Amino acid sequence: MTDGAQSLGIGMVGHAFMGAVHSHAWRNVHRFFDVPLSPRLVVLGGRDEQRTKEAAARFGFESVDTDWRAIIEREDVDLVDICTPGDTHADIAIAALEAGKHVLCEKPLANTVAEAERMAEAAARADARGVRSMVAFNYRRVPALSLARRLVAEGRLGELRHVRAVYLQDWLSDATSPMTWRLRKEQAGSGSLGDIGAHIVDATQFVTGQVITGVAGMTETFVRNRPGAGGAEEAVTVDDCAVFHGSLSSGAVATFEATRYALGRKNAMRIEVNGSRGSLAFDFEAMNELWFYDGDEPGETAGFRRIIATEPEHPYVSAWWPPGHGLGYEHTFTHEIADLLRAIGDGQSPEPGFADGLRVQRVLEAVESSAADASRWKPVEE
Amino acid sequence: MTDGAQSLGIGMVGHAFMGAVHSHAWRNVHRFFDVPLSPRLVVLGGRDEQRTKEAAARFGFESVDTDWRAIIEREDVDLVDICTPGDTHADIAIAALEAGKHVLCEKPLANTVAEAERMAEAAARADARGVRSMVAFNYRRVPALSLARRLVAEGRLGELRHVRAVYLQDWLSDATSPMTWRLRKEQAGSGSLGDIGAHIVDATQFVTGQVITGVAGMTETFVRNRPGAGGAEEAVTVDDCAVFHGSLSSGAVATFEATRYALGRKNAMRIEVNGSRGSLAFDFEAMNELWFYDGDEPGETAGFRRIIATEPEHPYVSAWWPPGHGLGYEHTFTHEIADLLRAIGDGQSPEPGFADGLRVQRVLEAVESSAADASRWKPVEE
Amino acid sequence: MTDGAQSLGIGMVGHAFMGAVHSHAWRNVHRFFDVPLSPRLVVLGGRDEQRTKEAAARFGFESVDTDWRAIIEREDVDLVDICTPGDTHADIAIAALEAGKHVLCEKPLANTVAEAERMAEAAARADARGVRSMVAFNYRRVPALSLARRLVAEGRLGELRHVRAVYLQDWLSDATSPMTWRLRKEQAGSGSLGDIGAHIVDATQFVTGQVITGVAGMTETFVRNRPGAGGAEEAVTVDDCAVFHGSLSSGAVATFEATRYALGRKNAMRIEVNGSRGSLAFDFEAMNELWFYDGDEPGETAGFRRIIATEPEHPYVSAWWPPGHGLGYEHTFTHEIADLLRAIGDGQSPEPGFADGLRVQRVLEAVESSAADASRWKPVEE
Amino acid sequence: MTDGAQSLGIGMVGHAFMGAVHSHAWRNVHRFFDVPLSPRLVVLGGRDEQRTKEAAARFGFESVDTDWRAIIEREDVDLVDICTPGDTHADIAIAALEAGKHVLCEKPLANTVAEAERMAEAAARADARGVRSMVAFNYRRVPALSLARRLVAEGRLGELRHVRAVYLQDWLSDATSPMTWRLRKEQAGSGSLGDIGAHIVDATQFVTGQVITGVAGMTETFVRNRPGAGGAEEAVTVDDCAVFHGSLSSGAVATFEATRYALGRKNAMRIEVNGSRGSLAFDFEAMNELWFYDGDEPGETAGFRRIIATEPEHPYVSAWWPPGHGLGYEHTFTHEIADLLRAIGDGQSPEPGFADGLRVQRVLEAVESSAADASRWKPVEE
Repeated sequence: MTDGAQSLGIGMVGHAFMGAVHSHAWRNVHRFFDVPLSPRLVVLGGRDEQRTKEAAARFGFESVDTDWRAIIEREDVDLVDICTPGDTHADIAIAALEAGKHVLCEKPLANTVAEAERMAEAAARADARGVRSMVAFNYRRVPALSLARRLVAEGRLGELRHVRAVYLQDWLSDATSPMTWRLRKEQAGSGSLGDIGAHIVDATQFVTGQVITGVAGMTETFVRNRPGAGGAEEAVTVDDCAVFHGSLSSGAVATFEATRYALGRKNAMRIEVNGSRGSLAFDFEAMNELWFYDGDEPGETAGFRRIIATEPEHPYVSAWWPPGHGLGYEHTFTHEIADLLRAIGDGQSPEPGFADGLRVQRVLEAVESSAADASRWKPVEE
Repeated sequence: MTDGAQSLGIGMVGHAFMGAVHSHAWRNVHRFFDVPLSPRLVVLGGRDEQRTKEAAARFGFESVDTDWRAIIEREDVDLVDICTPGDTHADIAIAALEAGKHVLCEKPLANTVAEAERMAEAAARADARGVRSMVAFNYRRVPALSLARRLVAEGRLGELRHVRAVYLQDWLSDATSPMTWRLRKEQAGSGSLGDIGAHIVDATQFVTGQVITGVAGMTETFVRNRPGAGGAEEAVTVDDCAVFHGSLSSGAVATFEATRYALGRKNAMRIEVNGSRGSLAFDFEAMNELWFYDGDEPGETAGFRRIIATEPEHPYVSAWWPPGHGLGYEHTFTHEIADLLRAIGDGQSPEPGFADGLRVQRVLEAVESSAADASRWKPVEE
Repeated sequence: MTDGAQSLGIGMVGHAFMGAVHSHAWRNVHRFFDVPLSPRLVVLGGRDEQRTKEAAARFGFESVDTDWRAIIEREDVDLVDICTPGDTHADIAIAALEAGKHVLCEKPLANTVAEAERMAEAAARADARGVRSMVAFNYRRVPALSLARRLVAEGRLGELRHVRAVYLQDWLSDATSPMTWRLRKEQAGSGSLGDIGAHIVDATQFVTGQVITGVAGMTETFVRNRPGAGGAEEAVTVDDCAVFHGSLSSGAVATFEATRYALGRKNAMRIEVNGSRGSLAFDFEAMNELWFYDGDEPGETAGFRRIIATEPEHPYVSAWWPPGHGLGYEHTFTHEIADLLRAIGDGQSPEPGFADGLRVQRVLEAVESSAADASRWKPVEE
Repeated sequence: MTDGAQSLGIGMVGHAFMGAVHSHAWRNVHRFFDVPLSPRLVVLGGRDEQRTKEAAARFGFESVDTDWRAIIEREDVDLVDICTPGDTHADIAIAALEAGKHVLCEKPLANTVAEAERMAEAAARADARGVRSMVAFNYRRVPALSLARRLVAEGRLGELRHVRAVYLQDWLSDATSPMTWRLRKEQAGSGSLGDIGAHIVDATQFVTGQVITGVAGMTETFVRNRPGAGGAEEAVTVDDCAVFHGSLSSGAVATFEATRYALGRKNAMRIEVNGSRGSLAFDFEAMNELWFYDGDEPGETAGFRRIIATEPEHPYVSAWWPPGHGLGYEHTFTHEIADLLRAIGDGQSPEPGFADGLRVQRVLEAVESSAADASRWKPVEE
């Protein structure tokens, strides 16, 4: 924190899991990173006033409001942080940007490409006026994955041939576990595809520096009804899993799988990249490690090396602890917000922006389109 | 070895990598397993007489012949072991079966479904006369994978939801490495698909006890020309990689990838299966391990357990060494041949038979058909 | 945080690595845990006023003082947190306790057994008056290690036979790296032994619930001089490594190694325990994992299982994120402080207390005594 | 196998576990390695004629004898392979060497230093006459460990600081498992110390190229009585575990542990070496892997790399299968015998010789001496 850093008023909408972890990052970012702006937790928005008040006390917000429009209009709010389900992102984000507020928006950017397009257009207009926006693909800020991006960019992998990316969870394995908003299409947009598939699509494009140009896939819903609030069965209207393959702009071949039915895999967001000179592998369940195979090594001593990405040379790490003292999930948000604050302070556009979120959305839509058309290949619109 | 075990005359065709490893198994199987027949290495076939003689001396064969038809006709040959490229399998196998010789045939069974169908028909006719045939999907005899099959069959995984199977090698990563017969369609039939993709298709059907009912996929050839024998460039006419997804008969979703461009992955034949009660994971690069997640365990102590499959309770292991004294690649062939000898001795049909080989062939053909049709879904004929 | 939680004024002495991580915990503990007291960061102590002021701004302290005695005397300070080198612990801690302030003291408790005894006596006296003290063996609060303790206490390991504990770092591997206070006996007391050996001694006693009754060991100093502040060589007066074996009260055999010369091992604080019914293994470099072997399992399916200790059933975890969303190093301090605040609030003595710190100190002294006497066995005074 | 290789008559004494695995190596070595001598399995010795005959049939020996002296006297026996318990090694080996037979002797070389000294003297005298001898420390021939030796010898680790070696098994964990000769001092000499401790002592000296100059340790017997043959309790007269530390000639610090009570560890023969430039780690439970940390790498990309030691560049591997097609336990014996045959053919002294076996024996005796003297440091006589 630079002495005398200007404060930045934060208005957050939503106070569930994402609200908690974003708040933690806002509260602590300037304790570890030299950021040009010092966050002030001004107001927290939520539908239920009592529960929102409780959350505000716990998170450290000064006030609450049950109307997100009121939050956007507040003069002491400089940035709106959107932590709500996907069906509300477009309205809140566009209104906030038009009101001149910077926006941090949870992923997936939107529930449809149409919404995402409107958001990206609004973001571009706002950006021209110095109003910034970012979509919260926090996995880009895992030090090990950020290092992966750096190694690819430096050419350490050579020409890329393969990406294999999976995001495996298991919290729906139990067929009797109850209905949630995440299983309703009207709120969540899609199931595993948008929730966790979005992360591996973004991570693939981030790490490789390329875009996905076409896909073919299928989706499946294993458990078609689940116990609803009143005990009655309620139909699951989203995918339980999505599998697809695709091409990157360089011609590399990529495979993807997103599921919440991989029993025993708790948060296995994994990506492996193979190139002509080297390979990389990452698994979020061991998030402080990046595995790197250097093909330039002689055969006698070549092997995947387990880089413990906690050295001062690794992205974001010098702000924290000594080598081997691992970081956790929440640090990815602190890093994300540090980068966002620097971008705002420097008058630059942060990454990933809404255009990146839109690009992910187009891939997801192409997957759904292919799944609905007997897995036929669908180009992804650029 | 039962005292006074009858001898079984072996005529082998082909003496490259597969010939060497099969010979080792024939020489040693009765030293470790109580088999009803004692192999006698009668004759080795090969095109070049001098090189075949050298191989015969090394492998322990009594004689050589450059004509496989002559081998089949020998009275002292009871079983023909086919270790040649795929384009010759059908002719040799069918002739041998018709001559009343048992047959062990390397995989893939054939280069086309049509050939495989003729072979399966010949095998069925021969089987009715007590003449046995087996296709050499040796990975079924890895103790850890055989244990995986057992656990699935016992219901320890519950209802299956996912299979993810990859076979990753890297020996073609170097774009300047020379042409081989494995890259010519007329000899090899296909590239990674038939060579290593066949193994994961068979392993999936073996471990799950189900069949693949439909697939959608793509193939890619990254390096289209390679230095030929005379130094001139020669076109690669097979796939360098194949990626596909499919459904199993129970509705489980499966993904597959076969490639020889996964730099750093030497022989990563991997399969993971997720069910409603448990999960399994295997990687041939650590072939003595099976990872098992028991979903019936309470959350506090549940975790993927690394079963070192070298206990006497594990398939095939009691014939070998104490716990923790690992087995190697070649043991899978010794196990395969032990099972084959027992089946012959017991007057039963060994598994996997040519019908299983045909079933794999049909999956591979469906993948190629899908790849040629924009990844469109293709049912696999039963 | 319970609404209306009373505030607890914190005076911290020392603002290096430990100061930073303690501050983080004090700032955030009530955001995640329902603690009866809400920390208020009142004053930070340090020798250099300017540097202390900078640290206070970064850590969030309201004021600074260069005299720790003044901090202890402040009425608005309820708890003194000691984050200084070991040679100052006894004076500060005893004075603070006598002034009626609760104390949290970094480990090792002291540089000598004599100091530790005086501290333990002062702590016992204070405790009788409701003034609490704790020694900061933070590794007890790694969820995976806390789970290990629970499993041993539940009898899941049966009768204990073995402990093997190592703490491996590599930051001194480079013989040219400069002198630090940690390499001077008068400040640090000892080298690897007190710095990291203390952690594995405490972890062994914590996880097993037993005490170390005797030890035999050796120490070594590999690099005897290092570049000092002015460029002149300065003698290293502490051990570079310590290795020792010992007995636990039950007769189990334990081995220990502490070193900063294990090149490539960044923070490998590892402990394995083998009993008659089960085994456990932990490595801080993968701090979210506990490996458990359940000897009651049949041989067919027994294996070390990788428990990802991020389930709600695991100690401390329900306060944080969903399964598989790993925690980091700093969380161990937040957990420690949560437990301390609860103990203070409940009028109970927190663990580990100064008596536990003394017990560790006695083991360390016995190791030094043995090392100075040709590795001869030394009983550890109870 | 060179054409026309001269045959070498093998007389083996003992036909239990070691007899089986040695026989396998003798039968197959010339099928894979170009050795100057072709083994002929002439005669197998054992006390019980019927059981020896059964073993001979299974192992492929031409004849049997119940008197080892008769075996030594046979003209068609050129080499005596000693696979009996340690109390018989000295008599058989010395007699065989004096009769002009080459000798391969299982480890530990003997049950006492006095015996080992006599054996080493006999071996030196025989060697001068061209009669060769070798002690079967087979782990030296694990390709990964042989590679470890090569990397140390090339200086890739720099100056060595640490060795930590353990050999963990669990087959005595069950306190009710029955008595065996391995638990009787008069037959086995010692318990875990000689049986498996010997391996890690030899491996340490082999990999580092140094000798152990002094040790301090303790032993423990956890289960003091076990059910004997007739059901009556019989006293266990050997150690159940041994733990010790020591110094290498360069001043490096080494730790050792041998136990059969590490529940869940099946054959964890592990060694880690840390030097000023690099580190190595090996675990026999994953015997095809060597982990190497190259300290010359920049911090950004440094990490322990998992070398799958199945490349043609790796020791012994080019005789076998393609990369990633793992080897097993028995291959170590085939490699050992290939080296022995080459040494005999080349008129050279094979390694490790009886002098190496004696050196190990002296370390073991020093450990026992220290254990009997309150862990006091004992120099190891050179």
